[in-house]
Amino acid sequence: MSASNFGHFDDANKEFVITTPYTPLPWINYLGNNGFYALISNTAGGYSFYRDPKFRRLTRYRYNNVPMDSGGRYFYFNLDGDIWSATGRPVDAKLDHYECRHGMGYSRFIAEKNQLRSELTSFVPLNTTAEVHRLQITNQGDSDKSFSLFSFIEWCLWNAEDDGTNFQRNLSTGEVEVESNTIFHKTEYRERRNHYAFYSVNREMQGFDTDRQHFIGTYNSFANPQAVQQGKSTNSVAHGWSPIASHQLDITLAPGESQSLIFVLGYVEVEESQKWQAQGIINKQPAWQLQNQFNTDAKFEQALSELNQYWANLLERIKVDTPSESFNRSVNIWNQYQNMVTFNLSRSASFYESGIGRGMGFRDSNQDTIGFTHMVPSAVRERIIDLAATQQSDGSAYHQYQPLTKKGNAAIGGNFNDDPMWLVLSTANYIKETGDANFLQQVVPFEDTPEVPNTLFDHLSASFNHVLNNLGPHGLPLIGRADWNDCLNLNCFSTEPNESYQTTQRGPSDVAESLMIAGQFVLYGKEYIELCKLQGKTELAASAQQAVDTMIATVDKHGWDGEWFLRAYDSRGLPIGSHKNDDGKIFIESQGFCVMAGIGLDDGRAQQALDSVNQHLLAEHGVVLQQPAFADYNKFYGEITSYPPGYKENAGIFTHNNPWIVVGETLLGRGDQSFDYFSRFTPLFRPQDMAKHKTEPYVYSQMIAGKDAAIPGEAKNSWLTGAAAWSFYTATQYILGIAPDYQGLRINPCIPADWSGFNFTRQYRGATYHIEVQNPHKVSKGIKQLIVDGNPIEGNLIPFDDYQGQHKVVVVMG
Amino acid sequence: MSASNFGHFDDANKEFVITTPYTPLPWINYLGNNGFYALISNTAGGYSFYRDPKFRRLTRYRYNNVPMDSGGRYFYFNLDGDIWSATGRPVDAKLDHYECRHGMGYSRFIAEKNQLRSELTSFVPLNTTAEVHRLQITNQGDSDKSFSLFSFIEWCLWNAEDDGTNFQRNLSTGEVEVESNTIFHKTEYRERRNHYAFYSVNREMQGFDTDRQHFIGTYNSFANPQAVQQGKSTNSVAHGWSPIASHQLDITLAPGESQSLIFVLGYVEVEESQKWQAQGIINKQPAWQLQNQFNTDAKFEQALSELNQYWANLLERIKVDTPSESFNRSVNIWNQYQNMVTFNLSRSASFYESGIGRGMGFRDSNQDTIGFTHMVPSAVRERIIDLAATQQSDGSAYHQYQPLTKKGNAAIGGNFNDDPMWLVLSTANYIKETGDANFLQQVVPFEDTPEVPNTLFDHLSASFNHVLNNLGPHGLPLIGRADWNDCLNLNCFSTEPNESYQTTQRGPSDVAESLMIAGQFVLYGKEYIELCKLQGKTELAASAQQAVDTMIATVDKHGWDGEWFLRAYDSRGLPIGSHKNDDGKIFIESQGFCVMAGIGLDDGRAQQALDSVNQHLLAEHGVVLQQPAFADYNKFYGEITSYPPGYKENAGIFTHNNPWIVVGETLLGRGDQSFDYFSRFTPLFRPQDMAKHKTEPYVYSQMIAGKDAAIPGEAKNSWLTGAAAWSFYTATQYILGIAPDYQGLRINPCIPADWSGFNFTRQYRGATYHIEVQNPHKVSKGIKQLIVDGNPIEGNLIPFDDYQGQHKVVVVMG
Repeated sequence: MSASNFGHFDDANKEFVITTPYTPLPWINYLGNNGFYALISNTAGGYSFYRDPKFRRLTRYRYNNVPMDSGGRYFYFNLDGDIWSATGRPVDAKLDHYECRHGMGYSRFIAEKNQLRSELTSFVPLNTTAEVHRLQITNQGDSDKSFSLFSFIEWCLWNAEDDGTNFQRNLSTGEVEVESNTIFHKTEYRERRNHYAFYSVNREMQGFDTDRQHFIGTYNSFANPQAVQQGKSTNSVAHGWSPIASHQLDITLAPGESQSLIFVLGYVEVEESQKWQAQGIINKQPAWQLQNQFNTDAKFEQALSELNQYWANLLERIKVDTPSESFNRSVNIWNQYQNMVTFNLSRSASFYESGIGRGMGFRDSNQDTIGFTHMVPSAVRERIIDLAATQQSDGSAYHQYQPLTKKGNAAIGGNFNDDPMWLVLSTANYIKETGDANFLQQVVPFEDTPEVPNTLFDHLSASFNHVLNNLGPHGLPLIGRADWNDCLNLNCFSTEPNESYQTTQRGPSDVAESLMIAGQFVLYGKEYIELCKLQGKTELAASAQQAVDTMIATVDKHGWDGEWFLRAYDSRGLPIGSHKNDDGKIFIESQGFCVMAGIGLDDGRAQQALDSVNQHLLAEHGVVLQQPAFADYNKFYGEITSYPPGYKENAGIFTHNNPWIVVGETLLGRGDQSFDYFSRFTPLFRPQDMAKHKTEPYVYSQMIAGKDAAIPGEAKNSWLTGAAAWSFYTATQYILGIAPDYQGLRINPCIPADWSGFNFTRQYRGATYHIEVQNPHKVSKGIKQLIVDGNPIEGNLIPFDDYQGQHKVVVVMG
Repeated sequence: MSASNFGHFDDANKEFVITTPYTPLPWINYLGNNGFYALISNTAGGYSFYRDPKFRRLTRYRYNNVPMDSGGRYFYFNLDGDIWSATGRPVDAKLDHYECRHGMGYSRFIAEKNQLRSELTSFVPLNTTAEVHRLQITNQGDSDKSFSLFSFIEWCLWNAEDDGTNFQRNLSTGEVEVESNTIFHKTEYRERRNHYAFYSVNREMQGFDTDRQHFIGTYNSFANPQAVQQGKSTNSVAHGWSPIASHQLDITLAPGESQSLIFVLGYVEVEESQKWQAQGIINKQPAWQLQNQFNTDAKFEQALSELNQYWANLLERIKVDTPSESFNRSVNIWNQYQNMVTFNLSRSASFYESGIGRGMGFRDSNQDTIGFTHMVPSAVRERIIDLAATQQSDGSAYHQYQPLTKKGNAAIGGNFNDDPMWLVLSTANYIKETGDANFLQQVVPFEDTPEVPNTLFDHLSASFNHVLNNLGPHGLPLIGRADWNDCLNLNCFSTEPNESYQTTQRGPSDVAESLMIAGQFVLYGKEYIELCKLQGKTELAASAQQAVDTMIATVDKHGWDGEWFLRAYDSRGLPIGSHKNDDGKIFIESQGFCVMAGIGLDDGRAQQALDSVNQHLLAEHGVVLQQPAFADYNKFYGEITSYPPGYKENAGIFTHNNPWIVVGETLLGRGDQSFDYFSRFTPLFRPQDMAKHKTEPYVYSQMIAGKDAAIPGEAKNSWLTGAAAWSFYTATQYILGIAPDYQGLRINPCIPADWSGFNFTRQYRGATYHIEVQNPHKVSKGIKQLIVDGNPIEGNLIPFDDYQGQHKVVVVMG
C-alpha cells in the first residue's frame, strides 16, 4: 500500500490528514492539556479521563478488541434506514468522502454520504474539564432531507481497573439522571464520589438512551445499534448494567441548509455540602454552567480559536528552517506536540498503555521535561518539585508517583539506581532555559523527612551521593533492580511465571554494576559541578570533580571491552556487553552514555565505540539495543532475555536511546552520520513505510522491530516514549546546536555537510533570536564567525545579559 | 417473550435445550472437573483455563463486551460465499435450525443451513487437560456440497490480568509453532513457563492462521473474519500481537454423506529438562500423546460415554421423586450439577466473576461442600485440609487462598470473623456423610506453626475459641472486617473512592459486633460439642456447652429487638437492624442464623422473627436482605449502603441466605411456608420469568433484584453462589428431611401439607436406602412410623451400623 492510501501531512494547518478509516492500527490524537484528557482515534475511538486514567476514567474503552478500537464518541446517521457514522466507523458503510484531520489539540472528521456532509470538530477547551464536539451537517442535495442523528458514549464506572474486572459489583451500581437535553452519569455519587459526568447537546432532543442493552441490543455491535436501526431511542434509564449516553435528534435540512449541534462531555466536582439539590437528585448547577460556556457556535469558535492561538504561541518559541522538510516538520510541529503529551501523561494512557498500570515515572518524567521546558517552563518547575518531593533523604527515589495524590507508589518502590541522577538533568535544563538559578534554593522536603526544609539543591546532592554510596566491587555504580533498561534485571533471578522480573529478588548479593549509570554519573555529575559553581560552592564542586574523575578512571579501567564500553557486570561479577559473551556482546546504552559523558573522546575510544555501534547495531530503522539478540532466557539477566529476538529490549530498536548515539556522533563532529541515524528512527522521515510501520507516522513509537525480528520495521507502543523529548533535545541542541546554557545561548551545530545552512528562531528568556547559520564551506561542525546584530563576538556563546530583546544572529560555519 | 422463545428442560437427557442464540444474557455451561475447566456459552463463547483462571488462562475472553459474549471456540462455514457459525453466533446468519443442549459436563450445538447440518459436541474428558470438540457435518441435500470450514480460538497470554493491561510488553511476546495439523501456543515458554497449549484437528488441514489480524482483519469482527470471507487462510505465523489458532478444512460431501472432525484444545506441562526438542523448538511429544487419545470417533465416543457414566453415577447418590416436577428437576439434576461447579471454582470464574480477582474463599469453600460431600467425599476431604492449612493457630483464617499454590492470599488477609466457624460446618458435614470420625485426627499444621503436628480437631477448637477470644462490649462476637455479609463494614469508615470498603480501617476501635456470628457460633458450636462427644472429650464438650449457653443468654439479653433479632452493633455501640433505625430495621441473616441455632424456638421468638421476615422482607422472587433499603451512604455501615436500593446487599434478594429462612421455617414445622419461599428464589420454579430473570434458568444466581429495585426479579451473577450448596442442603436435609447424622440417616421431613408423600433414594456410606415417605394425613411435619426393610423402628434415625446394604424404608407422616 502506498503512503497516500492512509494520509499525508498538511503543514500549513499543522495537521495530519488521514484519508481512510482503515489505518493499519488506530491513529490517534490527544485532546486536553490541563487535567482533562481525551484519546481520540481517526474514527473517534478512545476515551476521556480527569487527571488519572485509572481512577477517574469517564468513558469506557476496550483495549485489544475485535474489531480493533471499540468504544468512542460515536454519531450515527439514519436516513431512511441507511446508516453511517460521522467518523467513518464503527458503522462500516461506504462513504463518498472521509477525512480525519488530527491537529494541535483538536481533531476534525468529515464524512459525506447521501449528499449529507458532516464535519465534526472535537477538542478540550483550555482550562476546561470537558471535551466539546460540534457536528455541522449540511444538505448538499437538491431536496429536503429528514434523518435522525444518534449520539453515543459509554460511561466507565470511574475506576478503570475495577470497571474491567469486578462485574459482580459493578453490574448493580450504575446510575444516571436525565434532565433537559443532558444525560448525567452519577454512578457511586450516592456514596464516596464528589464528581459526576454529563453529556449534553445544545438543542431539544427527540429521545435518549442511557442503558446500553436498550440502545445497542445484547448481541448487536457498535456497528449496528438496535435503536439506530429502528430509528428510535427507547428512552431507557439505566439501573446497573452498563450506563451510556445517547441523544436522538430528528433533523430536516432544506437543500443547502446546515445545522450545527454542540455536544459537551463534561466532568464536574461538587463540594460535599453542595452535592444534592434534592434527595437523590444531584446538584446540576456546575454542569449547566459548564455547558453554557459552549452552547453557541460563537462560543465554540472562540474557544477553538483560543486553543489555536495557544498552540501557535507555543510553537513560536522554537522554529527551524533547514534543507530537510521532514526534519522541519518534526521539529516545528509534531515532535513538540508529542513532547507536550509525554510531559502531561508520562507513560500512563495511550492505545498501548492501558492507563491502569503505571503512574508518573521518576526517570521518565525528568527526561520528558528536556523536550518541553522551552514551551511551558512553569509547568516543568512544578513537575520537578513534585518529583523531588518523592525522593528520600538518602537520594533514592520512588520509581513512580500517582498523578492524583502525587504520592510515591509503594507497590513498586525504588532501587532503580539511575533514577536519582535524572533530577540533575531536568533541573539543570530548567535553569539553562529560564536562568532561574534561585530555583536551586526552592524548599522541597524529602519524602522521609517532611519537617526538614531541604532545598532542591540538596536533592541534587543526594542524587549525586546516592551513586557514590552505592558502588559495587569494581567501583562502578550498583544497578539495583534495573537502570534505564527496565529489563536488565541482574539481581533478581526469576524462575516462576507471574512473578515480577524487577521485584523478585533471589540474588545472593546485589552487586551487579551498570556502565550506563557510570556514564550517566559522569555526564550529569559534570552538570552538578556546574550547579555547585553557579552557587559559589567551590569546595563542593572540587570534591564532586574528584568523584567524577575517579568514576572516569574506573570506567577506563573496568568498563572498556577493547572496542566498545561494557554494559554491566552481573551479580557473579561477569561482564555483560563484552566480546566474551555469546549473546549481548555490545549494547547501545553504555556507548551512548559514556560517549555523551565525554569518556574516551580524547583518546579515540569514543569514536571506536560509536564505530562499533555502526558496525554491529545499525539497522534500517535505527540502532538496535544490543547484538547478538538473546536466543534463550537467562535468569541472571532477566526480562531482556524473555523477549523474542528483535523485539523490545532484546535487540529491538528502542527509540528512546537512539538519540544518545546521535548526540555522541555530534560530539565527534560526524554530522552526516548523526543525521542519518536521526532520520532512520524518526517516522516523519519515512512516510513510505507507513504500512510497515503501522503506528502513527507523525509521532515516535517506543519500539521498532529490529533486524532479528520476523517483521523488521514494524513499530509498537506509539506516543508515550522518552524518544520524543530526547529527539527534540538532540535535534535542536546537538544537530542544529542551539543550546541554552547557564549564561546564554550556545551555538555549536553538527549538520550534514551538504547543507548550505539553516535558520533557527528561538525565544529565550524573553528575548528572541533570529539565527541564520551559513555553511558556505560545507562542513559538518565548527564555527568561524558569530555575529549578533551585526557585531562579531568571540566564542560560541551569546551571553544573555548582553542580548535581551530581538536579535539577528548570523553564524558562519567552517 | 414466552419461555419457549428461549428454551426448555429435557430431563431424560439431563439437558437444558436452548432454542435461540439470542438469550437475554449468554447462558453458559461448565466443562471439566479436574483442573482443566472451560466456560462455554450457548453460542460457544467463553474461555478455558488450567486450575487458575488468572494465571493459567488458555484462551482470551472479553467481559462485558459489545456485542456481549465475544470470544470462544468458533467454527465458520463458507459455502459459496455464504457464511455461518456452527454455534449460532458470532456470525448472525439466519439458520434453518439452531439448538444448544447444555448437559452434564458437555454441550452440544446443532446448526442447519443450506441443507448442511452440523452437530458440535464439546466436553473435557475425565482426567484430561484438554477440551475436545467433535464437529459432525452432514449433507442433507441432494447434490454434492463443497465448502470450507474455519476453526478459531484466540490465545490468552496465560496471565489473564496482565493480558488485559500490559500491552506495551504483551504485543511483543506472542509465539507459536505450526506442525502437522496442530497449532502450538508457546508464548513465554522460551523463558519461565513450563507449559504450552495447542489446538489440533484430526485430519489434514488446507491452511491455517495463527495471527489474529491476518485472520480477522484489523477492523473486521468475529462475525466476518477476513480469511473466512475470502475463503482462504493466510498461513500467518504470529510474532507478537495476538496469536490465535485457526484451521482451514476444505470439505466436499455427497448427498447424505457425513464427515466428523475432532478438535483438541490441550494444555501440556513439560519438565524443565525436557522442554525442547531442538533449539527453539518445543517438545511436542506430550501434545501428540494427548491428541491421540481422542483422534477417532470411537475414542471420542468412549471418552464421552465415560463422562456420561461418571455423571450418571454421581447423580444416582441422591434421587428424589416428589409431586413437584420443578423441585425434582432441581434436586436431581441442576442443583447438584451447580454444586460441582461451585465446589470446583468457588467464586473465581464465571461470566460475572472475571477470574482474576478472587481465589478460593475460606467461607465460601467450606459452605460449598455441604451440597457436594455426598457426590465426591474424597475431594471434600482434600478441600477441608487445604482450607484448614491456611488457618492460623489463633483460629483466624486467610479470607482466600490461591488455587495454584494453595497459599493464603496476603493481599486480602483475614479478620472476617465468621470465617473460622464455617470449618466446623464442613467437617461435621463430611463426617456425617462418611462416618469417618478419624478425620478429626488428620494432622494439618496451622499456617503459622508448620512444624507443630496439630490435628483437624485442633483447628475446630481454634475456630471455636477464636469467637470466644473476640467478643465485644455486649459479649457478642466482634464482626471484624465483615461477617458473612462482606458489605457490612462496621469498623472501616471509608470516605474516599478507590479505597477498599473492607480493608480501609479508620474506626477509633473495632468493637462492632455481629448477631449473625452469634447465631453461627451457637449453631456450629453445638456441632462442635457433638464432635467433642464423638471423641469422648466430655469435659471439653461441657465447657463448650457452657460457652454456647452463655452466648444464647447474651443473644437473649442484647440481641432481641422486640419482634426480631438485631443484626449487629456498630462501632459506636448503636444497634443495626432495629426498629430504632430509619433504614435497615430488619435483616435476614441474623433471623436465619439465630433461628437455625434454635434460639427462641422454645419461647415463640423464633416464630416471631420469621413472621417478621414474612411481613417485612418477603418479595415475589424471594426474601430481600433487609428493609427498608438504605437511601443514603453511611460510612459507619460501609459498602452495603453504597448500592442503589433493591440491588445486591442493599435490599436485594441475595439468594445465598434465603435457604437459611427456609431451614428456619422447617424447624418451626411450617412446610407450606418453607416450600413457598424455596420456590420463589429457585429459578427452576419460574420458567415463565426467563426473560425477566435474564440469567440462566437452570442455575441459581447470586442476586435477584428486590422490591425496591427498578426492575424487580432481574437476576445477576449466575452460577457461582453459595445459594447452590445451601439450597440443595436445605431441600434434601430440611424440606425432604433425609439428613446424614453421625450414627446414620435421620428422617424428619417438613413438606407442603398437600403432598401425599415422596420417594427418596439415598446412597450412604456404601448402603442404599429406597425411602418412601407417605403423607396420608396431609401434615407438614412429624413421623408416625419408620419401617426399615419391613421392621418398624423407634425414633427417626436409621442407625447405619444396623442397616448396611440395600434397604427399603417406609416413612409414614402424621
